[in-house]
Amino acid sequence: MFKKILIANRGEIALRVIRTCKEMGIKTVAVYSTADADSLHVKFADEAVCIGPPASSESYLKMSNVIAAAEITNADAIHPGYGFLAENAKFSKICQEHDIKFIGASPEMIERMGDKANAKETMKAAGVPCVPGSDGVIGNFEDCKRLAEETGYPVMLKASAGGGGKGMRGVFKPEKLKEAWDAAKKEAKAAFGNDDMYMEKLIEEPRHIEIQIVGDSTGRACHLSERDCSIQRRHQKLTEEVPSPFMTTALRKKMGDAAVKAAEYIKYEGAGTIEFLVDKHRNFYFMEMNTRIQVEHTITEQVIDFDLIREQILVAAKVPISGKNYTPKLHSIECRITAEDPYNDFRPSPGKITTLHAPGGHGVRLDTHVYAGYTVPPNYDSMIAKLITTAQTREEAINKMKRALDEFVIEGIKTSIPFHRQLMDHPDYLAGNYTTKFMEDFVMEKQIEE
Amino acid sequence: MFKKILIANRGEIALRVIRTCKEMGIKTVAVYSTADADSLHVKFADEAVCIGPPASSESYLKMSNVIAAAEITNADAIHPGYGFLAENAKFSKICQEHDIKFIGASPEMIERMGDKANAKETMKAAGVPCVPGSDGVIGNFEDCKRLAEETGYPVMLKASAGGGGKGMRGVFKPEKLKEAWDAAKKEAKAAFGNDDMYMEKLIEEPRHIEIQIVGDSTGRACHLSERDCSIQRRHQKLTEEVPSPFMTTALRKKMGDAAVKAAEYIKYEGAGTIEFLVDKHRNFYFMEMNTRIQVEHTITEQVIDFDLIREQILVAAKVPISGKNYTPKLHSIECRITAEDPYNDFRPSPGKITTLHAPGGHGVRLDTHVYAGYTVPPNYDSMIAKLITTAQTREEAINKMKRALDEFVIEGIKTSIPFHRQLMDHPDYLAGNYTTKFMEDFVMEKQIEE
Repeated sequence: MFKKILIANRGEIALRVIRTCKEMGIKTVAVYSTADADSLHVKFADEAVCIGPPASSESYLKMSNVIAAAEITNADAIHPGYGFLAENAKFSKICQEHDIKFIGASPEMIERMGDKANAKETMKAAGVPCVPGSDGVIGNFEDCKRLAEETGYPVMLKASAGGGGKGMRGVFKPEKLKEAWDAAKKEAKAAFGNDDMYMEKLIEEPRHIEIQIVGDSTGRACHLSERDCSIQRRHQKLTEEVPSPFMTTALRKKMGDAAVKAAEYIKYEGAGTIEFLVDKHRNFYFMEMNTRIQVEHTITEQVIDFDLIREQILVAAKVPISGKNYTPKLHSIECRITAEDPYNDFRPSPGKITTLHAPGGHGVRLDTHVYAGYTVPPNYDSMIAKLITTAQTREEAINKMKRALDEFVIEGIKTSIPFHRQLMDHPDYLAGNYTTKFMEDFVMEKQIEE
Repeated sequence: MFKKILIANRGEIALRVIRTCKEMGIKTVAVYSTADADSLHVKFADEAVCIGPPASSESYLKMSNVIAAAEITNADAIHPGYGFLAENAKFSKICQEHDIKFIGASPEMIERMGDKANAKETMKAAGVPCVPGSDGVIGNFEDCKRLAEETGYPVMLKASAGGGGKGMRGVFKPEKLKEAWDAAKKEAKAAFGNDDMYMEKLIEEPRHIEIQIVGDSTGRACHLSERDCSIQRRHQKLTEEVPSPFMTTALRKKMGDAAVKAAEYIKYEGAGTIEFLVDKHRNFYFMEMNTRIQVEHTITEQVIDFDLIREQILVAAKVPISGKNYTPKLHSIECRITAEDPYNDFRPSPGKITTLHAPGGHGVRLDTHVYAGYTVPPNYDSMIAKLITTAQTREEAINKMKRALDEFVIEGIKTSIPFHRQLMDHPDYLAGNYTTKFMEDFVMEKQIEE
């Protein structure tokens, strides 16, 4: 087993990893930028090394500084958390070269799954469903027509040079294809000076549902059920839950089997997540794979009753997994609490926390690196806490979340707590009736003057 | 279902009940003495009524004030928590008379199980093993000799007027009986002016292991496994765990069956606990029954994954239970954090909490009514928080407790945190090798100057 692990990250995930290391009797090294000198991850680690100024590029992303910190402290492994260097193939390779175990994927695995086209090809080869469509640019309308028939309506035409919704058209019926083709090409030409088009199947009422997997060095993999992460704002997840309210036993089996097959096909070692889009007919399509621990791993832990960070460390130390797939018996929800003002378009609100009162009691978990007197620096991601509730049923977990949010007091900065509190009363959320489009129509109610 | 519940208690248990009521959509009324105006239970309830001055006898124990508070707020039920009026037959009866549901035992049940002799007779009739011994005072030495043979050695001679260990003798062999009888009688005469003696079987290496039961209005009962509460100081529990490290599958089945039989025999409605003494041969003997929720109910909740306060409320509302007995799949430990100085014979240390940082993360639960800025009043029980950790194994739960205790910061008052931290490193504790005598030999290590 490792003797000392350096955590190449900050914030709650750094603390999260330190906690598990302590429980496993493994020494820890924190690294920090000058902006994070007062963070709890620095206080709770056995050693701490300053690796640079506030700018991530000069500290948390500066590989030479991180490696130097590991060398001077004699760390025999590095846990990268999520973000920063967690999916950086070069960093994974440098760790190898320095004989420091990178608790994450191999350089080859990161390269293979990090490149979208590569990943899709691999998944296709493993027999995992991917979003059907054209292989690259469509030559002419006759090809387009044939491809649309093959793919099956509805389809989405997309400009190769596209972005921001320009040069995009959804087509639900064959008789509308020509009109859409012409319009999209014209729009693309005007917007990008390039009217190359490609085609994908249009995913109706898409839900983001991901499968947590763990693979070990023997080539065996298992899945730990799903997480529904459909509630997103600008591709940032806001809250997640397990089970997905859209899940069925049959779909879980199909998605779980596909994820395990994929993981075993690529001989994946460690904890990873396979993200899928699921349409309203419960067809699912591979989106991407994350070769790291995720923010929302907590809710999986709550329903499987074990520690995923511990599992990562064990697998990295070549301990084989049990191989048991998991069906959740409980319901767990996470709200990502950010230092943002939900009444002002989620504008960041860094600054000093003057008062903090944490919720507690039955079924409540809080993961946070902040405390009363802590100053949230403006330099990094705005997430300051993860509040997780777990109960026998979805309704009870939601009710628990409501009362925990009501108890949670953070003063001095604005937070997303009021957003989550409002979300927990939203009829569509309560009905479990939401897609990735949910936030497009969400409006914060007027702020209550206190 | 009840519309509004008054919580006739203070501190963490008042908050505990309020939390569940909120989650169930039931309105709450807090009552408080003037010493508790700033307590969280007052802040978090929908309504709060001051019921008197700091002295419990004039506030939390003053039945007329509690009932008046329930009447003016239109509460249709009262939850008594533990302590105070929780096992007061008169109060249970007064609630009945005022048509307010008492969420606890009926007056008759409290009387039956509250009187020790009564309770023992009832349990004997139900076929539950009780500590064998004399029925009252032993007439002469010949009777004593015969009784000792019947009871089986070792036996304990006890002065009827006894206390503080005076007039008590443990006898392990028949040939020592006469000497012990004479000495104990002489000592009792000198100490109490009364040398009446009775006899009980001497319980070797006694462990306090209790079984949580729940019964419903249909007469059905189930058990939710055990809690080991052997680590006590002056009959106050300090820490509890489930499973008991001394438990076996066979013993759990026997004790669980006995507890369920007892509960069904007396047609027990609600949550209750049957406390047993278990000797080194794994014989178990009924000690007493608590007809209320207990402080340490939390660890049972952690391993059964549901809410016992909710269960109490449901059963009080005549909802039938599932009837399923429970075998723990996880391990959970509670440390009772008190405002006491463990370096100074656990002397109470009330006063203002200047800093509070709560531990968190995976497998950590905290139940507390205190916060930074709160003043612990000198008038009540010194418990200020319950810290609970839960994991797959006992070793992991202990390691989690260590790191959670290390994270827990309370400044301004002395607390029992250093005691618990030391306990978690004690070789006998780590080996699960402890009895109710454990604390007799426990010495706090020298205080570390910070």
